[in-house]
Amino acid sequence: MSTKSNLQVARAAYQPKLPNALKGPVKAVEGAATQSVGDQAEIKALFPNTYGMPVVEFVKGEAACNDRFNVGIILSGGQAPGGHNVISGLFDGVKSINPENKLYGFLMGPGGLVDHKYIEITPELMDEYRNTGGFDIIGSGRTKLEKEEQFEKGIEILRELDVKALVIIGGDDSNTNACVLAEYYAAKNYGVQVIGCPKTIDGDLKNEQIETSFGFDTACKTYSELIGNIQRDCNSARKYWHFIKLMGRSASHIALECALETQPNICLVSEEVEQKEMSLDDVVNYIAEIVAKRAADGNNFGTCLIPEGLIEFIPAIKKLIKELNEVLTDPATGESRAFASAEEQISFVKSNILPENLAILESLPEDVARQLCLDRDPHGNVQVSLIETEKLLSRMVATRLAAWKKEGKFVGKFSAQHHFFGYEGRCAAPSNYDADYCYSLGYNASRLIANGKTGYMSVISNTTAPAAEWIAGGVPITMMMNMERRNGAMKPVIRKALVELDGAPFKYFAAHREEWARTTSYIYPGPIQYWGPSEVCDLSTKTLQLEHQK
Amino acid sequence: MSTKSNLQVARAAYQPKLPNALKGPVKAVEGAATQSVGDQAEIKALFPNTYGMPVVEFVKGEAACNDRFNVGIILSGGQAPGGHNVISGLFDGVKSINPENKLYGFLMGPGGLVDHKYIEITPELMDEYRNTGGFDIIGSGRTKLEKEEQFEKGIEILRELDVKALVIIGGDDSNTNACVLAEYYAAKNYGVQVIGCPKTIDGDLKNEQIETSFGFDTACKTYSELIGNIQRDCNSARKYWHFIKLMGRSASHIALECALETQPNICLVSEEVEQKEMSLDDVVNYIAEIVAKRAADGNNFGTCLIPEGLIEFIPAIKKLIKELNEVLTDPATGESRAFASAEEQISFVKSNILPENLAILESLPEDVARQLCLDRDPHGNVQVSLIETEKLLSRMVATRLAAWKKEGKFVGKFSAQHHFFGYEGRCAAPSNYDADYCYSLGYNASRLIANGKTGYMSVISNTTAPAAEWIAGGVPITMMMNMERRNGAMKPVIRKALVELDGAPFKYFAAHREEWARTTSYIYPGPIQYWGPSEVCDLSTKTLQLEHQK
Repeated sequence: MSTKSNLQVARAAYQPKLPNALKGPVKAVEGAATQSVGDQAEIKALFPNTYGMPVVEFVKGEAACNDRFNVGIILSGGQAPGGHNVISGLFDGVKSINPENKLYGFLMGPGGLVDHKYIEITPELMDEYRNTGGFDIIGSGRTKLEKEEQFEKGIEILRELDVKALVIIGGDDSNTNACVLAEYYAAKNYGVQVIGCPKTIDGDLKNEQIETSFGFDTACKTYSELIGNIQRDCNSARKYWHFIKLMGRSASHIALECALETQPNICLVSEEVEQKEMSLDDVVNYIAEIVAKRAADGNNFGTCLIPEGLIEFIPAIKKLIKELNEVLTDPATGESRAFASAEEQISFVKSNILPENLAILESLPEDVARQLCLDRDPHGNVQVSLIETEKLLSRMVATRLAAWKKEGKFVGKFSAQHHFFGYEGRCAAPSNYDADYCYSLGYNASRLIANGKTGYMSVISNTTAPAAEWIAGGVPITMMMNMERRNGAMKPVIRKALVELDGAPFKYFAAHREEWARTTSYIYPGPIQYWGPSEVCDLSTKTLQLEHQK
Repeated sequence: MSTKSNLQVARAAYQPKLPNALKGPVKAVEGAATQSVGDQAEIKALFPNTYGMPVVEFVKGEAACNDRFNVGIILSGGQAPGGHNVISGLFDGVKSINPENKLYGFLMGPGGLVDHKYIEITPELMDEYRNTGGFDIIGSGRTKLEKEEQFEKGIEILRELDVKALVIIGGDDSNTNACVLAEYYAAKNYGVQVIGCPKTIDGDLKNEQIETSFGFDTACKTYSELIGNIQRDCNSARKYWHFIKLMGRSASHIALECALETQPNICLVSEEVEQKEMSLDDVVNYIAEIVAKRAADGNNFGTCLIPEGLIEFIPAIKKLIKELNEVLTDPATGESRAFASAEEQISFVKSNILPENLAILESLPEDVARQLCLDRDPHGNVQVSLIETEKLLSRMVATRLAAWKKEGKFVGKFSAQHHFFGYEGRCAAPSNYDADYCYSLGYNASRLIANGKTGYMSVISNTTAPAAEWIAGGVPITMMMNMERRNGAMKPVIRKALVELDGAPFKYFAAHREEWARTTSYIYPGPIQYWGPSEVCDLSTKTLQLEHQK
């Protein structure tokens, strides 16, 4: 029986490209002292041992390359393409320093460190996972490392395994926690370094120092392949509007990147909806008007990209959800209220919410309104992620167009199909870009470790140039931090990057979207290619290309 | 502004492989007279001019290659990857015979012939579409060519354009109609030949003569890429069951092929459900038992593939839908009954259907039952294709597992995600297999035309061998026909191929599925590759490989 596809077998042999700077012995060139992006005094007070450290760049040089040490690695949070290549880069980097060095993987996320669940990553195991998608080599998890007792449990096993440094692969929260851990171990003089790696398909972990988080490239290309295929179908059958929701949490980076790659008729950007204070009605009108204009040209088809987080950026919906959460929770117990039947629950909701929220609720399609009233988590909260925004919008657009038809304002047909892409791309095998970028991030981490760094993020930049010219180094995590309110308390956190409306990617989109809406200017990116012309296989995202042009 | 992706540009240069037999001049070798697969007397009587013709095979030979003629082409029905390559193969084939020959494309399907809407396919236009997905070069449509007045409208424009032969690219119905048209034009001595081409992603147009319909390969590989990605995610996060519905109409070929490519934990096969007379309850039990067994091993995750047509193969559901259709139609007008409200409609349904159907309706999850009672087409019919079988099954499995939990029969957690793949793959750019197969089908059609054939299907076989060794020729469409009841009357039709439970693909699946259910034996096929090792780029489907082994 087969155990691997032919592609898996062939792709395993790919040797990811390393920056020239990381080939052979390297030395660290240190810049000036740094400070955090905001709230310098507070951050400095919270991180006395890891604040203000210099940015580091690696250049060719003479390094002692026989240090004997062990390293631990943790995958934290949602999957992203390339995680296994961070591990293989780290593995090869650590072994290149001394073949006796060992790499331990903690299982199922940060919980593995606390519960002392781990495996040694052997050469044989590593070879099974080179250039593959997924996080299944050691699994991932969402346990947050934030409590001292967790840190203390961690140090027990790190000492037992003689681990000199821990690499944590994660998003903004996980890297914040990596820095808290680095600070704690430094303050206690435990002698264990902590290094972070920027991961998330959502693309919201980037700043002056970090060009992009890994996985964004592959996930966007996978979604764009599918959107392109749907657009080709759309343009062949000429009878459907396709409403396509895309993962990405709050930020609209994925939707925007996919729009730049595929040139759909419509792409909503949550950050713009919020800035313009658009109501749900405004959003529905915006879509319906484009549908009506295309219909007037005889084109009863099109595509509309919707970022996952959209619904939470619409003030009225946000308010409605907030009140539903309150009403459906029993104040005495803090638990979800119990009802004898669905109808009773709905009527309870309707008679207990504010008139303005009731009006919003009743403006929604019946099944969405029912879902909002009925589906709750154990604490009585509406499960926002379960709301099928793509269907909500298409139904409301249909209703709007039906009204316009009576007024003679809409002369076509409107029929919709719905899609939601997320799990389809989070574990795709990494593109050449992510394979190289991740391998370099991991390899680079081994150099940060060898140079005694802690509280740093592994950073590779200049990635729109050929890999040989990429710049490798480290940035103190504190440098990316400011203070933000989380769950009612001020906390030091890495600033999350939403789509900037004055940034080059959004501006390019905004400059072209009217033409894309009216004409049919679809681009079909096709599937990710691993072999073939470099301009096909080695491209970075449009987002990155545009950001680098500016 | 970009108008094409880099992959589109690079892939345009691909020169599809042709069988050696079609390179250079060819001559037709004719076999013995043929007969239809069933109902020979009736079929012969209906097709006096196109019945009994020999199978044709092309071999290298001396052919007059300067005939001057024009050809028309029609894309009929749903999109399938490779349609543009059939056209480019036909275009190049027709031009190779005489560069003055012209190819006309009728627009938006068979309707274009009737309405005299067409374009000439110029070399410049053709080059824009080589090796691309979609049918957008001329569009497709679902108008059925079955009436004499349509045939007569058609001959007007065919004469005006001096067209010697019409090539119709379609599924079983469209090819049946192509044969009816061929017979009609032959009987009338109109001097226009008609040639069919076997298209459908569903894979249900195959028989002793046709190995596979085009598009099946690419569509299945695209869906398998996504299923593989989801499985990698599933195996990394270890917390969801993914229920994945796949297009394919009645037949389960797509689901089965995807199962062979990805080795999911569960794949339902409608043909087996029907043969075993499984109830919805049986299907739910089958899934829930696998979920429970995996949970007992600590694996609260998995994948379940569901063929689109499943619901109609479950006898009790079929009966319920039939009665709902009757009850919701006003017998006086034949139109959908009108109701004041959704609640009134539901209560009308519940008090007017048979008790056994009411019991089935009430066993369904509330929203599915509502959807069944409420969503109707203009004739009052339930829209079966709108039923979200993937959600229906996962909800019922959840309910079953909750009951088992109380009994101690289920010890795990069950949380589901849902997917439906169809439009994501129908217009993907063709794999090398489909690019070569389609180009050969089209090129081969030009040879059938040059040899004066009509009522033939273009057939390429031996396609698991390298393309050079493929066999090219034609099969009389009548040979694939029998009589079947359609809309109350007996009609000559091409027999639709469902999954054969004693065929090699199903038997391989059945022999391995218990192991795939219990263990996690996922395969990750990855995206279609156009460059790179031949064993990655040029593979045919597992279905075809297994069928050829037998």
